[in-house]
Amino acid sequence: PMNASTESALLLAAERQARYAAVRSHSVALAAPLSAEDQCIQSMPDASPTKWHLAHTSWFFETLLLKPHGAGYRTPDPAYATLFNSYYEQLGPRHPRPQRGLITRPDLAEVHAYRAHVDAAMEALLAAPLEAELAFLVELGLHHEQQHQELLQTDILHAMSMNPLRPAALPQAPRATEAGQPFAWIEQAGGEAWIGHAGPGFAYDNEGPRHPVWLQPYRLGNRLVTQGEYQAFIADGGYRRAAFWLSDGWATVQAQGWTAPAYWLPEGADGQPEGIYTLRGVEAFRPEAPVLHLSFYEAAAYAEWAGARLPTEAEWEAAATGPQAAALHQLHGVAWQWTRSSYDPYPGYRPWAGAVGEYNGKFMVSQLVLRGSSLATPPGHARDSYRNFFPPAARWQFSGLRLAQDA
Amino acid sequence: PMNASTESALLLAAERQARYAAVRSHSVALAAPLSAEDQCIQSMPDASPTKWHLAHTSWFFETLLLKPHGAGYRTPDPAYATLFNSYYEQLGPRHPRPQRGLITRPDLAEVHAYRAHVDAAMEALLAAPLEAELAFLVELGLHHEQQHQELLQTDILHAMSMNPLRPAALPQAPRATEAGQPFAWIEQAGGEAWIGHAGPGFAYDNEGPRHPVWLQPYRLGNRLVTQGEYQAFIADGGYRRAAFWLSDGWATVQAQGWTAPAYWLPEGADGQPEGIYTLRGVEAFRPEAPVLHLSFYEAAAYAEWAGARLPTEAEWEAAATGPQAAALHQLHGVAWQWTRSSYDPYPGYRPWAGAVGEYNGKFMVSQLVLRGSSLATPPGHARDSYRNFFPPAARWQFSGLRLAQDA
Amino acid sequence: PMNASTESALLLAAERQARYAAVRSHSVALAAPLSAEDQCIQSMPDASPTKWHLAHTSWFFETLLLKPHGAGYRTPDPAYATLFNSYYEQLGPRHPRPQRGLITRPDLAEVHAYRAHVDAAMEALLAAPLEAELAFLVELGLHHEQQHQELLQTDILHAMSMNPLRPAALPQAPRATEAGQPFAWIEQAGGEAWIGHAGPGFAYDNEGPRHPVWLQPYRLGNRLVTQGEYQAFIADGGYRRAAFWLSDGWATVQAQGWTAPAYWLPEGADGQPEGIYTLRGVEAFRPEAPVLHLSFYEAAAYAEWAGARLPTEAEWEAAATGPQAAALHQLHGVAWQWTRSSYDPYPGYRPWAGAVGEYNGKFMVSQLVLRGSSLATPPGHARDSYRNFFPPAARWQFSGLRLAQDA
Amino acid sequence: PMNASTESALLLAAERQARYAAVRSHSVALAAPLSAEDQCIQSMPDASPTKWHLAHTSWFFETLLLKPHGAGYRTPDPAYATLFNSYYEQLGPRHPRPQRGLITRPDLAEVHAYRAHVDAAMEALLAAPLEAELAFLVELGLHHEQQHQELLQTDILHAMSMNPLRPAALPQAPRATEAGQPFAWIEQAGGEAWIGHAGPGFAYDNEGPRHPVWLQPYRLGNRLVTQGEYQAFIADGGYRRAAFWLSDGWATVQAQGWTAPAYWLPEGADGQPEGIYTLRGVEAFRPEAPVLHLSFYEAAAYAEWAGARLPTEAEWEAAATGPQAAALHQLHGVAWQWTRSSYDPYPGYRPWAGAVGEYNGKFMVSQLVLRGSSLATPPGHARDSYRNFFPPAARWQFSGLRLAQDA
Ligand SMILES: [Fe+3]
Ligand SMILES: [Fe+3]
Ligand SMILES: [Fe+3]
Ligand SMILES: [Fe+3]
Repeated sequence: PMNASTESALLLAAERQARYAAVRSHSVALAAPLSAEDQCIQSMPDASPTKWHLAHTSWFFETLLLKPHGAGYRTPDPAYATLFNSYYEQLGPRHPRPQRGLITRPDLAEVHAYRAHVDAAMEALLAAPLEAELAFLVELGLHHEQQHQELLQTDILHAMSMNPLRPAALPQAPRATEAGQPFAWIEQAGGEAWIGHAGPGFAYDNEGPRHPVWLQPYRLGNRLVTQGEYQAFIADGGYRRAAFWLSDGWATVQAQGWTAPAYWLPEGADGQPEGIYTLRGVEAFRPEAPVLHLSFYEAAAYAEWAGARLPTEAEWEAAATGPQAAALHQLHGVAWQWTRSSYDPYPGYRPWAGAVGEYNGKFMVSQLVLRGSSLATPPGHARDSYRNFFPPAARWQFSGLRLAQDA
Repeated sequence: PMNASTESALLLAAERQARYAAVRSHSVALAAPLSAEDQCIQSMPDASPTKWHLAHTSWFFETLLLKPHGAGYRTPDPAYATLFNSYYEQLGPRHPRPQRGLITRPDLAEVHAYRAHVDAAMEALLAAPLEAELAFLVELGLHHEQQHQELLQTDILHAMSMNPLRPAALPQAPRATEAGQPFAWIEQAGGEAWIGHAGPGFAYDNEGPRHPVWLQPYRLGNRLVTQGEYQAFIADGGYRRAAFWLSDGWATVQAQGWTAPAYWLPEGADGQPEGIYTLRGVEAFRPEAPVLHLSFYEAAAYAEWAGARLPTEAEWEAAATGPQAAALHQLHGVAWQWTRSSYDPYPGYRPWAGAVGEYNGKFMVSQLVLRGSSLATPPGHARDSYRNFFPPAARWQFSGLRLAQDA
Repeated sequence: PMNASTESALLLAAERQARYAAVRSHSVALAAPLSAEDQCIQSMPDASPTKWHLAHTSWFFETLLLKPHGAGYRTPDPAYATLFNSYYEQLGPRHPRPQRGLITRPDLAEVHAYRAHVDAAMEALLAAPLEAELAFLVELGLHHEQQHQELLQTDILHAMSMNPLRPAALPQAPRATEAGQPFAWIEQAGGEAWIGHAGPGFAYDNEGPRHPVWLQPYRLGNRLVTQGEYQAFIADGGYRRAAFWLSDGWATVQAQGWTAPAYWLPEGADGQPEGIYTLRGVEAFRPEAPVLHLSFYEAAAYAEWAGARLPTEAEWEAAATGPQAAALHQLHGVAWQWTRSSYDPYPGYRPWAGAVGEYNGKFMVSQLVLRGSSLATPPGHARDSYRNFFPPAARWQFSGLRLAQDA
Repeated sequence: PMNASTESALLLAAERQARYAAVRSHSVALAAPLSAEDQCIQSMPDASPTKWHLAHTSWFFETLLLKPHGAGYRTPDPAYATLFNSYYEQLGPRHPRPQRGLITRPDLAEVHAYRAHVDAAMEALLAAPLEAELAFLVELGLHHEQQHQELLQTDILHAMSMNPLRPAALPQAPRATEAGQPFAWIEQAGGEAWIGHAGPGFAYDNEGPRHPVWLQPYRLGNRLVTQGEYQAFIADGGYRRAAFWLSDGWATVQAQGWTAPAYWLPEGADGQPEGIYTLRGVEAFRPEAPVLHLSFYEAAAYAEWAGARLPTEAEWEAAATGPQAAALHQLHGVAWQWTRSSYDPYPGYRPWAGAVGEYNGKFMVSQLVLRGSSLATPPGHARDSYRNFFPPAARWQFSGLRLAQDA
């Protein structure tokens, strides 16, 4: 990680302090509309309580920076080491993931106190110039926190969706913007392309090494698939016809009883959903808005129905960084875009050294790559080389799709 | 239910109002030490959040009394009818039981407001003399609330036990009292005995009809089995020797990995548990104190090991109401006592008419009867004819045992 | 068991040899129409392969009689001790029950050879007079084999029912006989009654001690409930109306999607099932024939719908042995009759000493008692004091019901 | 599929008949040592009974060739269409996969009769020259049958492994041959390489289109990893140290209690397994023999421990078809070799038209590619472009590994 961290090391201390404060305070601001009860619950093992996100991101700084490098640092409670470790085997035992929602104590105030305690110690640590290794870890901690800012939103949406009163979890959360363009195919020449992070700036280990790939000519949709387009798939029997689906996808449709994307209300008399549950509460179906909360299975089935396919991650990145990029709307900031690429390591990939090596590499199986970023991705966190990944049945993310075709 | 309700109808309105207020305020007092977060969580489908108990007991009055009989009564929220119905098929749909812990809204303040709203309307209803039927339903509602007062405690104990910090949920909760007597067998003559509620006063439908049974001579332990006695069973391989166990019990021991009663901490170097988790936090092992939190399987296995057996419910009741009752310590107020009786209907049993007929009768299969009452049973709720019931693997109640033998 | 065995000890050796041969050969005759493949499969953990039944009943004699008492006896294969032990913890390890259907070797011929080997050794053992203890074990082994003769039929019916070709497993199996009488209530006086086995002759330990019970006046149906009567329950929404069902029963109906008794084919245009799958293949719906293959839940729900209830086991036995017994048709030989009695121990019950103590006692929880006997019960195996038992959701037995009412 | 089928169409009828007869008779010969019981059972949903393999491969010819194109063809039983359809949604309903082992009827003789019936009709069909489309389907049917010849062996091995007697299922089955060479790295230059089937001859749709890839320089092990090498991994705590494992792999190790590859007997006093269960029964541990029956998780963990990695499928194919191929021992005929490549579609991949389009494409998610072929792969079935695929936890195949490294 030295390229990124070397650069980061050159930041002035004041700049780094300001950046730290900005990212950290954004987490608190995101959670502010939620009550202590809201922040405590967990609706499925894959999702975590808001309060846990607030604590875990602090634990990350405490464990990787303050305990080894913070002069005289003392934790408010040694039990936090276990309670707020997510999945790092090298960093000791972990509270069982499915039981995160039962931790009423420490309560929310104590978690805020934990954040303040960590922030004070970090402020001290950041007051002096940092060695490259530490500067890298600070930067990693901030990107990590930004990732959890997005998860905080997807997780509370899922949790609140279990409440039949359909409350508005975050009334000020952004609304998915419409592309405003008619659909068009944007042609891509193919041939040799280079993908992967090239620097400068921070990137996760899984975004490299940068390397050449060979692409056949292809085309990409100029925008995301819309709710209206997806509704046409449903109306055409999309969820009742096996022919469009991967075998596992079809089995999931049957087992889960899926008939529409996550958070769509039942169909009304007009054949359209009576609304869509969002962080802002129930909103109207908007035919021009991008469809969100699809699984990979659904995205792939839709593409099959539409006579198209999903792009590979290399196709996505090559196009997003190529000469036609400006014609591709909604690349970022609306919905993560499922690709037809399994989350395999890049050639020459090696995880970071140490405990942070568990950040990405150990999940490289049985997951699919999503590209772009979503309306919930915090500013400054998106990159064209970013490799997001989820299992194929996951629907609680802000995940949509962009079509591709062979040219 | 007319005997009980006729009697109840004769109460002066002021007496009934006072009784209503006393029972209702006790629920709130019990929950008072718990935070809103504490009151929201649910640790297993069998247990409910504190907040849900507070709301559901109010729903009971609202649904059975205020909606049909409260002049001009209006509910604060029609959704409560579904959210807070426990299991009454006749009273409409129900929020899924395993998801009670995800209801952050209504929040705790709203639930308190719901209670106040119901209480105000009930106060008005109770200001005038009541017909027998309504008087009965009021009395039932109060006994129902008392039952939930005990469940509120068992459920929060279970929920808090999932927190590795082992917090004290209710620091002022009562401690199980020691009998103070050496063990002795108390002989019972057997022969014809009458069991079941004979009035006067309230009883559940499942406590009748009163009827004769024929008992062989038997003897009962003069007190409950203690922690020290139970520890001797463990030390003798109690959890490793199939011979003591019912087949289902042995399978449960294997599947669950049981090695001690619920809430016992691991064994220390002295072969005793390092403590016992209670509502007051972790407390010391007390050899003279009664053992609590046993399943029926464990109670029966212990009895087998001890060369004894569990009493039948008829034996228990006949003794508790017989000439030797004074020699039987800890009949009430310490621990529910597992019996060797399945929860079958008494001869001639008919459930109450109407929706309240679902209160007890529909659970009469695959459960075992417990007799007595526990340290968590509210004052005035215990009866010698009371038939508590739980599945044989349940351990989260305040459940212990008293030995029996054929004479 | 000494009463029974003393008597049994007085049998002449030749009589006992003849009886042994008759019972043993009946098992082989029952299985004869089945191919080796048929005899190998297992369709659920509760049911066993035919071949396993043939082997396990031989293992019983080998283990309890031949190994300890058969001079110079040698087993054909020491592995059989584990393979064919059903559930006796005291008799060593057991092959996992759900994997009985994967034992293709020993093959059927080897199992027949095992039977012949055991039979030869038993013949030698039975040639001389037996001590009471051994005589008892021989008798127990024969009753045990008879029980498995019935299970062999219920289990192969279930296994074959999984084959969409609906083959006739045992084309010569008996057909449930119709009562031929119109329905009538037979009044029973109640009062003191004695139940439990009184000798002479063999009985299981769970049938004693004989003891008095006190019964309220009641009435019993003069015959079993018929297919036609049960169809009326279905037509009246029996499987769609929660009011008739115990809570666990209703949950089972939902979870399993039950809409009719086991083995009923779907409804035809006339509202009747298009047939009923039996050991003889698919047969026509016969309105006058007794309904079979009900769970306890269904039997209890039907009774509730019919304004009646199930009899207790004491009511059943008192009536079957009382002055009105001749008016009660179909007590034996047609269908086991669910009672409203949980399978609890009788007062003073102690299991037999030794390993055979595991025969009955350790299953005395979470099961319901069935009385009578069925068309699959072998001749000489039925008794009025017989306590058959199964969990409340079991439907693969030949289980029906007889109605009762309070008088 | 026209290239392959055009070529196939040029075969002389007699050649095609001979090839058909040879492949078909090989299936029967493989199963011949197994009894009817052996051929009936199914030990897990992923595996199928031998008898089912024999029938399903016949169903394939019947359904795709005889029913549409066999003049006057009549099936022996219309129910076979459902019973022996594996997963083709377009070809009608299917008997539930987990219940294949309960089909005792048709019995083995009837299945042999079915094969003979199909073979007679096919012989007639093959007597005349075939159009390209039909010639392709015949060829596909033969390759399909060959695939099932391998599965027949892996499935009966798994089924027989459930028998504690450890029988020899197929005493004449081949033994994994040892490489006989010391380990060496074989360097590969990298750069542009073409992978995918290039013809002539048959290939599955998933092996194309042939396309260029760009490879970094790398090296491959000259032979497969051996039992002895793998035992060193175990001895070094391989199954106890999370650091070597993918996250899902580590979770599987915990959940399944894995401590060694499938079919390894427990460790003896010398730290080596006391034997390895094979189709020939239990055989001695052979340190020089290739390790088999690994999951992808185990293969990847071993590679990590060994300071290496798994090759990608492109690396494997480029090396196997490159100038150094002769230095790479055991490419074929010993063990399938897990790659680090998820089973994603090749660029430009389109499934075959019609029902056979379900053959491969719909499984392209959550699986990993294996390359090479195994000791159970029938002669003539292996290809360097062959893409075998299984989920990452699968261990019942003849799956091993070859190491790779970045150069
Ligand atoms: Fe994290
Ligand atoms: Fe309640
Ligand atoms: Fe048995
Ligand atoms: Fe196939």
